[in-house]
Amino acid sequence: MSEFRTVGLIGRRGDTRVAPTLLRLCEILHAHGRRVVVETEAPGLEACGAHVERSARETMAGRCDLVIVVGGDGTLLSAARAGSTWGVPILGVNQGRLGFMVDVAPREIDDMLTALFAGEYLREERLLLQARIRGAEREAGPFLAINDVVIRNQAAIRMLEFETWLDDEFISQHRADGFIVSSPTGSTAYALSGGGPVLHPSLEAMALVPICPHTLSDRPIVVGARQTVRIVLRGPAATLAMCTCDGQNSTPLRSGEALEVGAADSRLRLIHPKNYSYFNILRNKLHWGRGPQLNPEAS
Amino acid sequence: MSEFRTVGLIGRRGDTRVAPTLLRLCEILHAHGRRVVVETEAPGLEACGAHVERSARETMAGRCDLVIVVGGDGTLLSAARAGSTWGVPILGVNQGRLGFMVDVAPREIDDMLTALFAGEYLREERLLLQARIRGAEREAGPFLAINDVVIRNQAAIRMLEFETWLDDEFISQHRADGFIVSSPTGSTAYALSGGGPVLHPSLEAMALVPICPHTLSDRPIVVGARQTVRIVLRGPAATLAMCTCDGQNSTPLRSGEALEVGAADSRLRLIHPKNYSYFNILRNKLHWGRGPQLNPEAS
Amino acid sequence: MSEFRTVGLIGRRGDTRVAPTLLRLCEILHAHGRRVVVETEAPGLEACGAHVERSARETMAGRCDLVIVVGGDGTLLSAARAGSTWGVPILGVNQGRLGFMVDVAPREIDDMLTALFAGEYLREERLLLQARIRGAEREAGPFLAINDVVIRNQAAIRMLEFETWLDDEFISQHRADGFIVSSPTGSTAYALSGGGPVLHPSLEAMALVPICPHTLSDRPIVVGARQTVRIVLRGPAATLAMCTCDGQNSTPLRSGEALEVGAADSRLRLIHPKNYSYFNILRNKLHWGRGPQLNPEAS
Amino acid sequence: MSEFRTVGLIGRRGDTRVAPTLLRLCEILHAHGRRVVVETEAPGLEACGAHVERSARETMAGRCDLVIVVGGDGTLLSAARAGSTWGVPILGVNQGRLGFMVDVAPREIDDMLTALFAGEYLREERLLLQARIRGAEREAGPFLAINDVVIRNQAAIRMLEFETWLDDEFISQHRADGFIVSSPTGSTAYALSGGGPVLHPSLEAMALVPICPHTLSDRPIVVGARQTVRIVLRGPAATLAMCTCDGQNSTPLRSGEALEVGAADSRLRLIHPKNYSYFNILRNKLHWGRGPQLNPEAS
Repeated sequence: MSEFRTVGLIGRRGDTRVAPTLLRLCEILHAHGRRVVVETEAPGLEACGAHVERSARETMAGRCDLVIVVGGDGTLLSAARAGSTWGVPILGVNQGRLGFMVDVAPREIDDMLTALFAGEYLREERLLLQARIRGAEREAGPFLAINDVVIRNQAAIRMLEFETWLDDEFISQHRADGFIVSSPTGSTAYALSGGGPVLHPSLEAMALVPICPHTLSDRPIVVGARQTVRIVLRGPAATLAMCTCDGQNSTPLRSGEALEVGAADSRLRLIHPKNYSYFNILRNKLHWGRGPQLNPEAS
Repeated sequence: MSEFRTVGLIGRRGDTRVAPTLLRLCEILHAHGRRVVVETEAPGLEACGAHVERSARETMAGRCDLVIVVGGDGTLLSAARAGSTWGVPILGVNQGRLGFMVDVAPREIDDMLTALFAGEYLREERLLLQARIRGAEREAGPFLAINDVVIRNQAAIRMLEFETWLDDEFISQHRADGFIVSSPTGSTAYALSGGGPVLHPSLEAMALVPICPHTLSDRPIVVGARQTVRIVLRGPAATLAMCTCDGQNSTPLRSGEALEVGAADSRLRLIHPKNYSYFNILRNKLHWGRGPQLNPEAS
Repeated sequence: MSEFRTVGLIGRRGDTRVAPTLLRLCEILHAHGRRVVVETEAPGLEACGAHVERSARETMAGRCDLVIVVGGDGTLLSAARAGSTWGVPILGVNQGRLGFMVDVAPREIDDMLTALFAGEYLREERLLLQARIRGAEREAGPFLAINDVVIRNQAAIRMLEFETWLDDEFISQHRADGFIVSSPTGSTAYALSGGGPVLHPSLEAMALVPICPHTLSDRPIVVGARQTVRIVLRGPAATLAMCTCDGQNSTPLRSGEALEVGAADSRLRLIHPKNYSYFNILRNKLHWGRGPQLNPEAS
Repeated sequence: MSEFRTVGLIGRRGDTRVAPTLLRLCEILHAHGRRVVVETEAPGLEACGAHVERSARETMAGRCDLVIVVGGDGTLLSAARAGSTWGVPILGVNQGRLGFMVDVAPREIDDMLTALFAGEYLREERLLLQARIRGAEREAGPFLAINDVVIRNQAAIRMLEFETWLDDEFISQHRADGFIVSSPTGSTAYALSGGGPVLHPSLEAMALVPICPHTLSDRPIVVGARQTVRIVLRGPAATLAMCTCDGQNSTPLRSGEALEVGAADSRLRLIHPKNYSYFNILRNKLHWGRGPQLNPEAS
C-alpha cells in the first residue's frame, strides 16, 4: 500500500449531484484503508463520520497523495490551479457529461479505485504555462495557467495593437481583439473557438492564436514551450487590455507593458484509467463521426 | 380535388428499406383517389396491383402534378435534376435520417398527405444554377445545378490558376485547388466544407468559395444571382480542370475557356409540412446546441 | 447647374494633411460656382474668405446637396452616421491610402469635380442597419449602423449565452464571445476578421457572424435584409453584454433583453467616379493577387 | 579551409536568369579556392573553363560538402529531394523574390560566401517526413517528403472516406477531399491553404490537416514527429486516392491500404546568413504588417 495513502476529495461547488458521489468515494476509500481529506465546503458528508478530515481546497494538496475531483473540467481546472504547484496527481470523476480531463464516470469509480490501488492506471504529465507582466514601473506574476493566457480588449469599441516576440526574435505586429497563448490542454478550450489547432497533450508546445485579427493572413502559430512568448501592448498611453489565466485572475496590461508566457517548472499530473484514450474523448466532445453528410451524392 | 391529381413516386436505388414506404404511399394515395405513377426501377410494388403506372425517372415529371421522393437528399437531388425543368413540386420523405430537403419521416406520411390534399402545406421555390462552358472552339451546356457548380484540379499535383469576373467586372485572379459557385441550397453542402457561409434559401444569391486558396485573404464572396459569374482558366495550354454540377456531369475545362454560372430560368419547387422550419433542420444537421463546452469555467 | 448647388466639406479631425485638400476643394467648387459649407471644426480655411459658410457636422446634411469627406473610411463613417438620415450623397477623398468607400485620390479631385458637375459619375445606394433594444422595462433605439451591430462580452472572463431568431423563426442558441450583424458595407470590416463572407454591396442581405463560437459548427449565415434578426441575451440576471453600432454608441444589453436588427428606411448614398470598381478596391485592400506562392513546385 | 571544399551548384531549370548568378558563384568559389561541381543541365557555364566539373543533380550530393541552389523554394525542394539522404547542407539563393528557404539575394552572395568560409553562418536542421504504403498485397516506399504527404480524391466527384491512427490509437474517421500530413517546413505551404497552423521549424511535430472536411468540427491536429500517423482508406473496393510527397511521386492508394507517415532518419540541412530570421521571412511572405485596416474607427 505504498501509493496514495491519503486521498483528497473536491466537488463542484453548488452542485448537489456531487454529494452522493463524494459519499460513495469515502466509503470505497475507507474500505481500501485510505485516509480521506474532504474539501471544507463539500456538503452532506456527515454520514462518513469521524474518519473524514476537512481541508480548504488551497491547502489540500499539501496533505494528500492524490486528489479526486468530482464535477467537470472546470472543477478540475479550479482544483488544479489551487494545488498544481504541489505536484499532486489528480483523478477526475465527471458528474455530468464526459470532460476532456474528468474522464471517469461515477458508475466506474468502484472498479477504477480497485484498479488504481492495484497499480493499474496511467500517469500523464501536462505542460503548464507561466505568465509575467513586465513594465517600466512594475512586475507582476508569475501567474500559472493550465489552459491559456489571454489578452483581450476591454470594451467592444477598440481593437488592440501589439507586437509579439519569440525570445529575442520579433514575430509580428498585430491588430486584433486579443491574443491567446495556449497549452496543449487549452488547445481544445478557448483557443479552438478562436481557430487554433488541437495540440496533442504530449507536445511541449504552445499555440499562439490571434482573436479576430484584422490582417487576414495573421494565422495561428505553434512554437516550442522552451521558448518565451512576449506580447508588448502598443497604442496610446491610455490603452488598456485585460490579461487572464484560464479565464481568471484578470489583470490589466497597459500600453508599453509586456506579457511574457512560457512553460512553468511544475506540471499538471493526471491519473487515467488503463483504457484511457485522448482521441476517444476528443471524438466524443467534438461530435466527430456523427457529423452531417454535407455532400450528398445522387442515387 | 383540384391539386396533385397524379402523383409520381421515386425511391433511392438499391435501398430495400424504401419499398415498404413506397407501398404505403401507394395505398394512401389510392385512398385519396389519386393516380399513382411509380419509377420503373422501384422494386416490390406488385402488391399495388393494376392501379400503378410505371414511368422512367426522366419522363415522370411530365406526367405528374407532384413527385414524392423517398430516400435522402441525394435521391431528391437526382430526381430533381431529372425533372426540375418541368417545374413539378417535390415532396421528400427521409428514409434514414432527416435531410436538408427530405423532411417528412415515414411515420408522418399519413398525416402529411391528408394535410397536403386539404391544402395544408408550404410551397417553397429555390434558386437553380445554370452553367455554360465557352471556348474559342466550342460551347457546352447549359448544365443545371441545384447545389453547386465546381471546378477542380484533376490530379493532386497541380493547383489551378484562374480569373473570376462578375458580369463585366473583374473580380480577381486566383491560385487554388478549385472554385465553388453555390446556390443557397448548396451552401450547406460542399461549399460549407470549403469554408463558405450558410445562405438562407430565400436569398437570390450565389456564394463564391475558393477551395484551398493560396492567397490567405482570398475569402468567400456572396453575389446576387441576377449577375453572371465567369471563371476563366489560365495556365499552360495543357492545363485541364474538371467542371461538375452537383458532383455530376463531369466536363473538362481547358486553359483559356470560361465557365459561366448564373440563375436558371426554372426553379426547384419543394413542398413542406406546415410546421417546416429551415433552421430546425439546420440545427439538427449541424448538431447545433449539442456542441462541446470548449471553455469551462472554474467552480 | 441643377445638381449639387451647395456642397459640404468634412475633414478627418486632428489630421493636418486634410487642410490643403479642403482648401483646394473650396477653390475648385467656387470656380464651378458652387456654394461651400465647411465643417465648423475644419482648420485653416481662412484663405477661402467670406464665401465659405460654416456648419456643425451634425446639421450640415440639411443644408447641402452633396457632402465631400476628406480622410479615411472612418471619417466617412462618422460623417455618414451624422448625416445619413437626410439622404445626402457623399463623395469620399482618401487622404492617406485608398479606402473601401473613400475612393478618390487628392490629385484626382480636379478631374472628378469637373466630371461630377458634367453629370459623369456613378450613384450607389447601400443598405443601412437599424437596431433596437427591447426589454421588459425599457426600449432603446433606433440606432443606425452603416457597418455592423455587435454584441460582445464585456470582460475577458465570461462568454455570452444568447438565442437568435429570424422574424418569428428560432435560429439557434449560441455560446460565444459575441455576435455580429453586418451590412454588405460592413462585411469587409469587423465581420471579415470574425470569419464572415464578403457580401457584394448590391445585396439586400445581412451577415450573421458569431465571434469565437464554442460550437465549432456555428458558422456565418447570410439572411435577407427585409427580415429582422433578434438576439436574446440569456444567462444569470447579472449578465451584461455591450451592444455597439459601427463600434460606437456603446449600450449595455441585459439578460432577457432582445437586440433587434433589420434594414433602416434610409440609405447610404455614395458618389463614385465613372471608372469605380468595387472589386478593384477589394483587391487593393485585401492584397489579392500579391499573395505568396504557398505551394512551390519543384523545378 | 576545413569546411565546404567542394561546392555543388544547381539552378532552376528553364530559367535563363540563373546563368549569370551561377557564373558569378563559380568565380567567387574559385577565388576562395573551392572545387566547383555544376549540375549537368545548367546552361552557359563555358566561361568558367576547365575548373568546373559536371554532375547529374541526383549524384551531386555524394561529391559535395555544400550545395548552393539558385532559384526558388521549388528548386531547393527539388534539389533537396534528390540529395537530402546524403545530409549535405544546402544554401539557397533566391533568383526572383524571397523564398521561405531560399533566403540569400544574388547581390548578397559575395558577402555571404566570404562570411560562410569564415565560419560566419547559421546551420539549421529540419524534420523530414517518410511515407510508406502498406496493403494486403504490396508495400511501397519509403518516400521522402520535405513539405508534406498528401492523399487526395482523384476526380472532383467523390469525397474520400478514411480512418486515422496515431501509432496504435484510433484518431477518427473522416469524410473529406483529402488529408495532409505536414512537416514544420510544409506548414507554410499547402497545409496553410488548407487551414492548418504555422509550425515553428524547430518543432519535432507534424500537422494533420483535413482538406474540405464534411464534419465541420474536423480540425487540424498537431502531433509529435516520433509517432507514426496511419491513414487507412475506406469505401468500396474501387475507391482510389492519390498519394503525393511534396506534390510529386503520385502513387495510388487503394481502399483498405494504409499510408504511414513519420519522421525520416535523415534531416534537411540548411545554411543561413548570420542575420537570418524565420519570422522576418514569414512576415514578408504572408504580407504581415501590410494588411488592410478592416475596422476603421470614426474620426
